[in-house]
Amino acid sequence: MRATAAALLAPRLTCSTSRVPLSSPRLPLRRIAAMAAASSSSFSPEAARSPPALELPAPPLSKFKVALCQLSVTADKARNIAHARAAIEAASADGAKLVLLPEIWNGPYSNDSFPEYAEDIEAGGDAAPSFSMMSGVARSLQITLVGGSIAERSGNNLYNTCCVFGSDGKLKGKHRKIHLFDIDIPGKITFKESKTLTAGQSPTVVDTDVGRIGIGICYDIRFQELAMLYAARGVHLLCYPGAFNMTTGPLHWELLQRARAADNQLFVATCAPARDTSAGYVAWGHSTLVGPFGEVIATTEHEETTIIAEIDYSLIEQRRQFLPLQHQRRGDLYQLVDVQRLGSQ
Amino acid sequence: MRATAAALLAPRLTCSTSRVPLSSPRLPLRRIAAMAAASSSSFSPEAARSPPALELPAPPLSKFKVALCQLSVTADKARNIAHARAAIEAASADGAKLVLLPEIWNGPYSNDSFPEYAEDIEAGGDAAPSFSMMSGVARSLQITLVGGSIAERSGNNLYNTCCVFGSDGKLKGKHRKIHLFDIDIPGKITFKESKTLTAGQSPTVVDTDVGRIGIGICYDIRFQELAMLYAARGVHLLCYPGAFNMTTGPLHWELLQRARAADNQLFVATCAPARDTSAGYVAWGHSTLVGPFGEVIATTEHEETTIIAEIDYSLIEQRRQFLPLQHQRRGDLYQLVDVQRLGSQ
Repeated sequence: MRATAAALLAPRLTCSTSRVPLSSPRLPLRRIAAMAAASSSSFSPEAARSPPALELPAPPLSKFKVALCQLSVTADKARNIAHARAAIEAASADGAKLVLLPEIWNGPYSNDSFPEYAEDIEAGGDAAPSFSMMSGVARSLQITLVGGSIAERSGNNLYNTCCVFGSDGKLKGKHRKIHLFDIDIPGKITFKESKTLTAGQSPTVVDTDVGRIGIGICYDIRFQELAMLYAARGVHLLCYPGAFNMTTGPLHWELLQRARAADNQLFVATCAPARDTSAGYVAWGHSTLVGPFGEVIATTEHEETTIIAEIDYSLIEQRRQFLPLQHQRRGDLYQLVDVQRLGSQ
Repeated sequence: MRATAAALLAPRLTCSTSRVPLSSPRLPLRRIAAMAAASSSSFSPEAARSPPALELPAPPLSKFKVALCQLSVTADKARNIAHARAAIEAASADGAKLVLLPEIWNGPYSNDSFPEYAEDIEAGGDAAPSFSMMSGVARSLQITLVGGSIAERSGNNLYNTCCVFGSDGKLKGKHRKIHLFDIDIPGKITFKESKTLTAGQSPTVVDTDVGRIGIGICYDIRFQELAMLYAARGVHLLCYPGAFNMTTGPLHWELLQRARAADNQLFVATCAPARDTSAGYVAWGHSTLVGPFGEVIATTEHEETTIIAEIDYSLIEQRRQFLPLQHQRRGDLYQLVDVQRLGSQ
C-alpha cells in the first residue's frame, strides 16, 4: 500500500487552535475502505474529500444584510482609518450585520509601503491603530467585521493579513495571505509580493454570528483547491478582500468569484478598493456578492461606494438539492486532501 | 503515518491500457517527503497533485483549426448520420484538423430514446452505423474527430459515450460519461439519466495529432476535479460535448467552460446540438472555444452552425509563464489525488 504525499506531510502539521473545531463527525477510514471494497457501482462520493466533507452548521443568523465597503485609499494612514470607520458606521446604520473592507485599505498597495504601514497586531494598541479601530467599531456596533487586509509585522516578517472580528470586538480569526501575488505579464502588470511579504501557513475558517466564513485574500482566489477545502469544512460564505488590477480585473475577477460560488454551491463576497488612477497600482474595483448558483446578487463599478445586499443561507441548501453535486462526486476517481485537517485527526 | 482514503483505494484500480501512458517522469515520493521535511518556506507545489503533474507533451501539431459542429438533431437516425457526415466534410473543407460533434447527436436526448438509438460500438459495422460513419470519415478526411456522444449498448448496460478517432480512422479513446445528469430544479428542469444509463468508470485522455485531449460529457464539466486531474495528466485541450438546457445553460454553461480553462490554463472546446423548441429536451446551444486565460475565442447562439476557430497551444506556455500557478500551489496545504493514475504506478 502506498502512502500519498499528503499522508507523508500530515503528521507534522496541526490545526491552529484559534480556529473552528474541524474534527466534526466524519466517515472513518475503515468505512471508506469498506465502501471501496464494495461493488463498482459505489462511487464513494464521501471519499472525494479527505477527510470527508462536514455538514453545513446551523448559522446563528441565516438571513442578514452584508456591506462591501469599496473604499478610496490614500497615503494618509490616519485619514484612511477614520474614513474606514465612517464607512463601517454608515453600513451598520443601513442595517448591515456583516461588513467587509478591501485588501490593504490603510495605505498604498506597494512593496515600498507595506513596511511603512505595517502594524504589530499581536502587540495591539498604539502599535496597531488600524487593528484597534476595527476591534472597537465591531464591538460598539455589534457587527461581524471581515477587516479586508493590512500589512502585518510579526518578528522579522511582514504578512498581508485579514483580521476577522466578532460582534464583541474580539479577534476571531486572522488570515495571512497564503498565495503571494507574484505575476509577470510583460507590458501589463508585474508585481512580486514575495519581495517583502511572507506567505501564511494555514487556511482560515471562522465561526461568526453570521455563519461559518472561509477567508482568502486576492490571489488566493485563483487557487480553486482552497475554496474546495473551505467548502468541505462547512463554510457558508467565502470572503475575499482583493485588489485585482486593470489587466487581470476585466479578465478574471468576476469569473473567479462566480466559479468558486457555483462549483462549491456557497456565497462569495469580495471587497476591493476604489480605483485611483494616480496610484502606483491601479485597482479594478468591482466589489461583488455572488450567490450559490454563481449568480451576481450585487456588484458595482470602480468608484467609491458601499454595496448593501442580502444574504440568505437557505439558498445554499436549496441549490444543493437542485444539483446534488456533493452526492455525485466520484471519490473512486479523485480526492481532494485537506492536509492540515487530516493531520489534526 | 496515516494512509489517505485514496491510498486505500488505489491498489485495486488500474489505468486502461488503451489510453496514453501516464507514468511519465515525476517526482518520486522520496523526494516529496524530503521536501516536506525541509524548511517551512518549502510549499511543495509538486505535492498539490498526486501523482505530481506531468509536463505538457509536445503536440504533433501546435496550431490548427478546430470545428465545432452545432448540429440540428431529429428523430430520424439515418438523416442525423448523413447530416453529421456532411457537416464534418464541410468543416474539413474549411481546413479543420479537429472536429467536434454534440452530445447525443444521432437521436433525441431522452431516456425513452437512448435504448432505441444505442449502438454496440464493440461489435461495430452494421450494429453501429453512427460509429462506422465517424470512423470512415475521420480516415477519409485525415482528421481527428471527437465524436460528441451517442448512446452505447454494452451487455446489459447503456452508456453515454464519446468516441475519439485518429486521422487513420481508428478509435483512439472512448469516454463513458462519468457523472450522470441527475438533477431536479422543480418547475424548470428535471432529468435522471440514471434511469437508463450506467456511469463510466474512468477519466479519458487521448493523444492525437492535435495534442493531448481530456474528454468530459456535459454534466462532467460541473466537477472541477476532473478538469484538474486532466490538467495534471498534461492535456492541452478539454473537450466537452454537452447539451445544457434552457435553465442551466444561461446560468452556467459559459461560466463553467471559462472557469475550467482559466483555472487549469488550457483550452476548452464545447459542442452542443442546435436548439429545437419542439423537442422534449430543449438544448441551450452556444458551442464555444475558450483559451487558456478563460477568454472566449469563438462562440455562437442557438441555431445550427459550424464554428471554425484557431487553436494555438503556444498560448498555454505563455499564460503559464505570466501566472505561474503550477509553481505557486500549496502542496503543503492541499492535494488532488488522481486515484487511477496513482494506482497504476
